[in-house]
Amino acid sequence: MQEKVEPGEYYHGKRVLVTGGLGFIGSNLVRRLAGLGASITVIDACFPDQGANLFNLKDVLDELVLVVADIGSVDEISAFIVDQEIIFNLASCVSHIDSLRNPLRDLERNCLSQLRFLNCLTELSPCARIIYTGSRSQYGNPVYVPIDEDHPLRPLDINGVHKTAAEEYHRIFHEQGNIRYTSLRLTNIYGPRHQMHHDGQGFLNWFIRQGLTGQEICVYGGGEQERDFLYVEDVVDALLRVAPDERCEGRVFNVVSGIPITVAQAAAAICDITDNSWRCVAYPPERSAVEPGNIRLDGSRLQVLTGWMPRYGLQAGLRETVDFYRQHGHRYFHGPKGNLVLSDKGME
Amino acid sequence: MQEKVEPGEYYHGKRVLVTGGLGFIGSNLVRRLAGLGASITVIDACFPDQGANLFNLKDVLDELVLVVADIGSVDEISAFIVDQEIIFNLASCVSHIDSLRNPLRDLERNCLSQLRFLNCLTELSPCARIIYTGSRSQYGNPVYVPIDEDHPLRPLDINGVHKTAAEEYHRIFHEQGNIRYTSLRLTNIYGPRHQMHHDGQGFLNWFIRQGLTGQEICVYGGGEQERDFLYVEDVVDALLRVAPDERCEGRVFNVVSGIPITVAQAAAAICDITDNSWRCVAYPPERSAVEPGNIRLDGSRLQVLTGWMPRYGLQAGLRETVDFYRQHGHRYFHGPKGNLVLSDKGME
Repeated sequence: MQEKVEPGEYYHGKRVLVTGGLGFIGSNLVRRLAGLGASITVIDACFPDQGANLFNLKDVLDELVLVVADIGSVDEISAFIVDQEIIFNLASCVSHIDSLRNPLRDLERNCLSQLRFLNCLTELSPCARIIYTGSRSQYGNPVYVPIDEDHPLRPLDINGVHKTAAEEYHRIFHEQGNIRYTSLRLTNIYGPRHQMHHDGQGFLNWFIRQGLTGQEICVYGGGEQERDFLYVEDVVDALLRVAPDERCEGRVFNVVSGIPITVAQAAAAICDITDNSWRCVAYPPERSAVEPGNIRLDGSRLQVLTGWMPRYGLQAGLRETVDFYRQHGHRYFHGPKGNLVLSDKGME
Repeated sequence: MQEKVEPGEYYHGKRVLVTGGLGFIGSNLVRRLAGLGASITVIDACFPDQGANLFNLKDVLDELVLVVADIGSVDEISAFIVDQEIIFNLASCVSHIDSLRNPLRDLERNCLSQLRFLNCLTELSPCARIIYTGSRSQYGNPVYVPIDEDHPLRPLDINGVHKTAAEEYHRIFHEQGNIRYTSLRLTNIYGPRHQMHHDGQGFLNWFIRQGLTGQEICVYGGGEQERDFLYVEDVVDALLRVAPDERCEGRVFNVVSGIPITVAQAAAAICDITDNSWRCVAYPPERSAVEPGNIRLDGSRLQVLTGWMPRYGLQAGLRETVDFYRQHGHRYFHGPKGNLVLSDKGME
């Protein structure tokens, strides 16, 4: 068994590539990596409807190389992926509903680009250590609870199919000896630096926006649906811990709090902090189609192997998040116009 | 429970679309459908490296509409998929090794085209009854045997990932109310009308070619690997039986003999019929990478529900196959040149 290395020491001077690094999880990760002295490259396609926001990295831009390109644009990215040591492959489109409206675009972004990227890596960074982030939506409706990593994958939407296919690409490239992968399956992550101008991803952040802007929080159905909420800094902890750990190679892990909380409880907690109120509304049909029922996930595989544990309870995480958006909400609430989001590959 | 309908009566006058209908399984199905009086449309891309062969349907061409187009070419096919009643969606590229050499092409043919096709169907043949053919390769190395339909899907190659993704598209479109699907997962099908000019698909047919052309049959490894062989007419029986049966809608079935036979036993059986010999050779590395070990499959779900049973044992099936190629081998052994295979969308 390898000696335990503190992530802090490990990343100093390491060449680290973060795809999707201007987005929600990516930018929180990049900021931590910058603090640890890593040599960082960020690739982000800056699709207007996704989470990229230049403000997310504004104060650390001097410490990294930023490439505005789709990871599938081999000509544009290949110069920047040579000899990377660690790759956090977070580039992804995550809207379940969009994937049913426009499945071909979801295929292009989540499968075609990933496959081109991995093909390219095989040549330019052979045997790179790569961490992919999958999604709870890959499981679909629970066959049993809590859902562990061996639970069948029967996603309810096309996005879940493509997230699975891309995870499988990583596994097969790994088994062929071309990369060394780990997949972390995430669910209901919330926190600072999430896009806040539409409700297509991250409903807890959307609740926070409603709370902060004085709108009543709208909970679909009766609000009794259980979810597993995790604060983004805890996800960053998991990413940083998994990458140097050889025991994690070739494996898939749920990254979850393990504590089921109802949507109504979460809404009430946000109302407490933002001094607002919430009410129930009927499910729109398109939401109903992708509603997976109660979600209880088993995160013990990662916790037992690596010792990772969430540091933030829901109250603490929500407080941090609300504080952030109280200060910086104007950078996030108004969409691509009015803040520093890149759009159509041009800087504002 | 619905009244039992004999497939013969059911198909008379029905509008039936067969994608991949010039290929191995497709053409055997189309010939049976023609005999049953169905109103048949065939769509086939005629990719040169796949199984399309005009000779497969030469004597029934007057009884059908033949469209030479990729199912993803919406403009070319849309006029032909309006108001189809039953769709046998067999268009597929099935080479495991090619999918590792050229994963992007495999993605385009097996996912992108399928997704475009289903999108198109939703508009033009809403609620069509559609039968997709999946593959044993979706399961990967057995976690338990015999492999039933609930066995985890961990394919060893990119082709298996894409066959699964396309099957999942069907399931999700079904769950959204846009089509009515069944998936039949097939394994090691052999018989007449299989391509015989390269060994990229269907090793049993390749053995038959070796046997008939006086070449010693080459078995990889020791030949002890178990497989489940099924004669193509039995697959056609299953397809014809499943489509009219409402109880099969929304479900996945293994279509297998359920009888494990070693590769060496199969080679020996072919040698008996063709008066040839066989020997063992080492696995080439690229074969070794996609070798799934012993395959034992559980086909009871389909058999119990529908009463389908294979009619052909291995000896009988091999005899039919050898007889066919003794008579028509010259149409199959020499590749696209020298027979009636369509190439690059131009008729010879």
